[in-house]
Amino acid sequence: MSLNVTQKLIKSHLVSGSLTPGEEIGLKIDQSLTQDATGTMVMLELEAMGLERVKTELSAQYVDHNLLQTDYKNADDHLFLRSACQRFGVWYSRPGNGISHAVHMERFGIPGKTLIGSDSHTPAAGGMGMLAFGAGGIDVALAMAGEPMYVKMPQVLGVKLTGKLPDWVSAKDVILEMLRRYDVDGGRGKIIEYYGPGLECLSAMDRHVIANMGTELGATTTVFPSDLEIKRFLKSQGRESDWLEIVADENAEYDLHEEINLSELVPLIACPSSPGNVVPVREVEGREVNQVVIGSSANPGLRDFWIVSQIVKGKVSCDRTSFDVNPTSRQVIENLAAMGDAFLDLIHAGARFHQAGCLGCIGMGQAPASHQISLRTMPRNFPGRSGTADDRVYLCSPETAAAAALTGKITDPRDLEKLYNMSYPQFVAPEAEIVNTEMLVPPPEDGSQIELEKGPNIKSFPEFDSLCDRAEVPVLLKVGDNISTDEIMPAGARVLPFRSNIPGISQFVYYLMDETFSERAKTAQEKAGGHIIIAGDNYAQGSSREHAAIAPRYLGQIAVLAKSYARIGWQNLVNFGIVPLEFVNPDDYNTIDEGDTIEISGLREAVKEKKDLTVKNLKKQHSYQVTHSLSDRQIDLLLSGGVINYYKAKLA
Amino acid sequence: MSLNVTQKLIKSHLVSGSLTPGEEIGLKIDQSLTQDATGTMVMLELEAMGLERVKTELSAQYVDHNLLQTDYKNADDHLFLRSACQRFGVWYSRPGNGISHAVHMERFGIPGKTLIGSDSHTPAAGGMGMLAFGAGGIDVALAMAGEPMYVKMPQVLGVKLTGKLPDWVSAKDVILEMLRRYDVDGGRGKIIEYYGPGLECLSAMDRHVIANMGTELGATTTVFPSDLEIKRFLKSQGRESDWLEIVADENAEYDLHEEINLSELVPLIACPSSPGNVVPVREVEGREVNQVVIGSSANPGLRDFWIVSQIVKGKVSCDRTSFDVNPTSRQVIENLAAMGDAFLDLIHAGARFHQAGCLGCIGMGQAPASHQISLRTMPRNFPGRSGTADDRVYLCSPETAAAAALTGKITDPRDLEKLYNMSYPQFVAPEAEIVNTEMLVPPPEDGSQIELEKGPNIKSFPEFDSLCDRAEVPVLLKVGDNISTDEIMPAGARVLPFRSNIPGISQFVYYLMDETFSERAKTAQEKAGGHIIIAGDNYAQGSSREHAAIAPRYLGQIAVLAKSYARIGWQNLVNFGIVPLEFVNPDDYNTIDEGDTIEISGLREAVKEKKDLTVKNLKKQHSYQVTHSLSDRQIDLLLSGGVINYYKAKLA
Repeated sequence: MSLNVTQKLIKSHLVSGSLTPGEEIGLKIDQSLTQDATGTMVMLELEAMGLERVKTELSAQYVDHNLLQTDYKNADDHLFLRSACQRFGVWYSRPGNGISHAVHMERFGIPGKTLIGSDSHTPAAGGMGMLAFGAGGIDVALAMAGEPMYVKMPQVLGVKLTGKLPDWVSAKDVILEMLRRYDVDGGRGKIIEYYGPGLECLSAMDRHVIANMGTELGATTTVFPSDLEIKRFLKSQGRESDWLEIVADENAEYDLHEEINLSELVPLIACPSSPGNVVPVREVEGREVNQVVIGSSANPGLRDFWIVSQIVKGKVSCDRTSFDVNPTSRQVIENLAAMGDAFLDLIHAGARFHQAGCLGCIGMGQAPASHQISLRTMPRNFPGRSGTADDRVYLCSPETAAAAALTGKITDPRDLEKLYNMSYPQFVAPEAEIVNTEMLVPPPEDGSQIELEKGPNIKSFPEFDSLCDRAEVPVLLKVGDNISTDEIMPAGARVLPFRSNIPGISQFVYYLMDETFSERAKTAQEKAGGHIIIAGDNYAQGSSREHAAIAPRYLGQIAVLAKSYARIGWQNLVNFGIVPLEFVNPDDYNTIDEGDTIEISGLREAVKEKKDLTVKNLKKQHSYQVTHSLSDRQIDLLLSGGVINYYKAKLA
Repeated sequence: MSLNVTQKLIKSHLVSGSLTPGEEIGLKIDQSLTQDATGTMVMLELEAMGLERVKTELSAQYVDHNLLQTDYKNADDHLFLRSACQRFGVWYSRPGNGISHAVHMERFGIPGKTLIGSDSHTPAAGGMGMLAFGAGGIDVALAMAGEPMYVKMPQVLGVKLTGKLPDWVSAKDVILEMLRRYDVDGGRGKIIEYYGPGLECLSAMDRHVIANMGTELGATTTVFPSDLEIKRFLKSQGRESDWLEIVADENAEYDLHEEINLSELVPLIACPSSPGNVVPVREVEGREVNQVVIGSSANPGLRDFWIVSQIVKGKVSCDRTSFDVNPTSRQVIENLAAMGDAFLDLIHAGARFHQAGCLGCIGMGQAPASHQISLRTMPRNFPGRSGTADDRVYLCSPETAAAAALTGKITDPRDLEKLYNMSYPQFVAPEAEIVNTEMLVPPPEDGSQIELEKGPNIKSFPEFDSLCDRAEVPVLLKVGDNISTDEIMPAGARVLPFRSNIPGISQFVYYLMDETFSERAKTAQEKAGGHIIIAGDNYAQGSSREHAAIAPRYLGQIAVLAKSYARIGWQNLVNFGIVPLEFVNPDDYNTIDEGDTIEISGLREAVKEKKDLTVKNLKKQHSYQVTHSLSDRQIDLLLSGGVINYYKAKLA
């Protein structure tokens, strides 16, 4: 049987289930990746489960999110993570060494291997022929403890790329075109596999861009073949021996089909405040731009910075426009500085050059001015994610961003040819990059005697009860469709430092929608033993942060009643003991309001027996049929009160 | 009559008074400097006074403090400052262009000119033969409006430098030696003038280091001659024509005398938590260091970064030690990157390289971990200033800091010779630096039509009443000696963004000593019409921030009763209508407690007539004699309720 790349990768790691779309499959996980915002909790979970040493082939912990250090908390987290890496046998990428996804691809990624990461953009590694999944931290912790990863077997959407990218159009425009066609939920339940002759004009890091933002489509992951370009890439990293060819068989088939003729693409831009709001740059040109930010895991390549340096070379950024350059990694900085005057050209044109990391992409600094337009080469523009509540963030390619830095307005980069008498700069990748491994600290052979170094803001994982059978609780909040984990549990400079402190972070749950939520939930917990919330379609989309489940659970959330769920968010709810109920009749959503009281009875049995359940709205005197689509494994977790309880018992 | 440099500079700018120490003199001001944390308020004051265009020869506004942008406020401030610069005729140094003091010296400083700056380290310009004063923002606003600057004629302390700095000892050690001898108040009422053959081994930027931290001695300012080294410096900046020789006459005399034999200096370090806690590095060597920060206005020179790059070249910073490099300016970055591999050597060794600005020096990021040691080449280590309440910050030279970055311990840099088989790197300054002027935006010829761009966090200056004659108010706080403006009105990431919003910032007044103060003051204002506080010696030392007067005034502070005051803080109190009363008998300090009620009667007359005043402690049934040493000009200001009221009336 002819296989596509996705099927080959899954088949070689399958430990349970079969390749039938919709069926839960278990996959052996070879590598794991954690970043600091989620990794502190992963380490606390490993501690809570009593793990001795990770069982993956390789696990790496990055410090890229919380680098601002406006008080002691970030720096304390860094010391904690360093000690936990030594304790559990994990590589430690020091603060400021760079963004996890790009550094992992450069230093550790291997075609054909599986990777799980506690960051929703982990699929970026699909750019080099890995099978890579974003997941909640607990799923990553379990994989580190040697457990398989479980996922419903997705459909494979084959995207045939033909033609060749025109000048001034680059990889970001390819994924923006996909978002234009599929919006933020069009990829749900799918693995997207790119193939075809158009691949020739996309470097490994270009593919990283496309795979990275497959997450914005809601895709399970994205896969590219491991071809000669990946060989070239690994060679440039001094790791040619890690290369393995993985390409689709000649007559490979896909469940779904799409085609993009790269030659026909034009510069695209995602307007506020969704990555799916994509239009041609031409349609919105001329709007005043107050900030341009270059960088992030969605445009991490040396090329992405070099092209900007060539565009701004010898010119000055508009004096009303902040020109922020957020380098991917120490290695990118070094190679950029070694490529002629590329680094100097950026600085001289006015770049505010930051330490390597995620920075403004997750609202950790460089928030834009009130109601001013910010153009970013980042993956997301959910409302308020930048750190400014009334932000107007647009997502675009480095070319489009650089054009705006010069003109101070949204500008089609193709116009630069006339405006500045410039031709499109042609990037030639260095045969061998300057490789920086010094900031990657290997774990000691034996870490069993290492003490975890916990500062005053690092709190043990809270204890949760097993699932209740009966509840009579208020509807504390009713939200609409496509609520992102950013809206459930915001990131940003105020919130992220509490990632390893559940009581502390819980004060910000649903904060952007309702500042009183946390206090109201505490009251409901005292009076009624908990609460539920009502949601529309695609609840908990976006970032994989498990805090969007743990913190609501800590505040007493028993269940969510939604029309449907995003995959990672749904899994996180189950992992921490919140029941993700679905309306049998979605119209029932309209008949429940905030403040209603819901009676749930026989919950344990309904979960256990996979039965539908009738819940009563005591205020409205209605009843609703609700259901769930949990697997046997998930049912066990939920009944125990979450995965920590389950594995604690299993190990005991 | 033979004159020293100080006397020459004062004489050429004297508009009132004479060169008799202790007498108030008025000085014509040629240039002004503002930074963003204080400058927003200066601009609001200019607006409140109704100024059309600045009357200085040159005024420059820098954006170096609030660069983190964790929400919209910083970025809104930048837009406001940009518009205000255009409105009032001020140069605008764009965000991230660099630290005011170094950029000003490189681009605008002229030997023989006077400079006033709303930043306490403005005296740094004394390094190039300017007469430069730090002052509260309102004094700067008045100078920008063409008013003279008033100061009590200080004594001149002549410091004769002999010998030559040994290897591994540099300018920072010279000023640390002064701090070892004089502590944080030994310079009060003095201008420090350096002279002698030892000057030959100190470059213009080395002198900047020493003049900058004269502020830590409490000195009014510091002065160096403008000699051939300053000529060389200006030539390297492309500004040779701005040079003017200003050296002391052959038989010039000084009021006070000191001598330092540079040849005898050893590496020094200021221990937590005062710049005056100076000991030889040798005495504290071996203590574990968790963070090293290179940069700030106290070590801004290209040399200071270059020497660190040479020390760490080819090595890796200790993996437990965060190695933060905080470049002075865009120009320093460019020149460093152009000096062989100096920039790459820093990055490769593990530097977290930040955008150019003040950063951690004022607690805007890179706060150390709880109770961990941080070594910094910065000017101050007041408690909590780093952003971490229980910080342990040491101040030292770049050489000492670099040594700790490598070893992870406090290390005498002289030991590097043996530890790493290294000889002391010899810096050769570039004949012509790469000059970066692109980020300095000149004001338009006519700004009268420019609208000030005020974001939602920028509030008009509050209106204050004229001075009351009678009050019966509580003692809301009693503090000890040497209370700094950092303790009165903290800086740091949470507080600084409220600099242009007095109601917002007032919630943090005395916050580090008493979190309840602001609420208690509001209650006292409602119930008793205000409050007073009791202080020991040298109240309001340190940073020149006028918010340490405006915000207490906004909260109803009528007077401070102290043993004595630091100069700038004292002036700021008067400028915003708080009466700086002094105990006639300092022992009375011991008999007043927090919670006592004080009756003040005849306050206006006592101020006006320069009489002592008897105040009653109603709770303790004591009476105290208090006094003041206000000039006629200050009395007018105080009676009006502050300088804004006074000049508003004058202009009306």
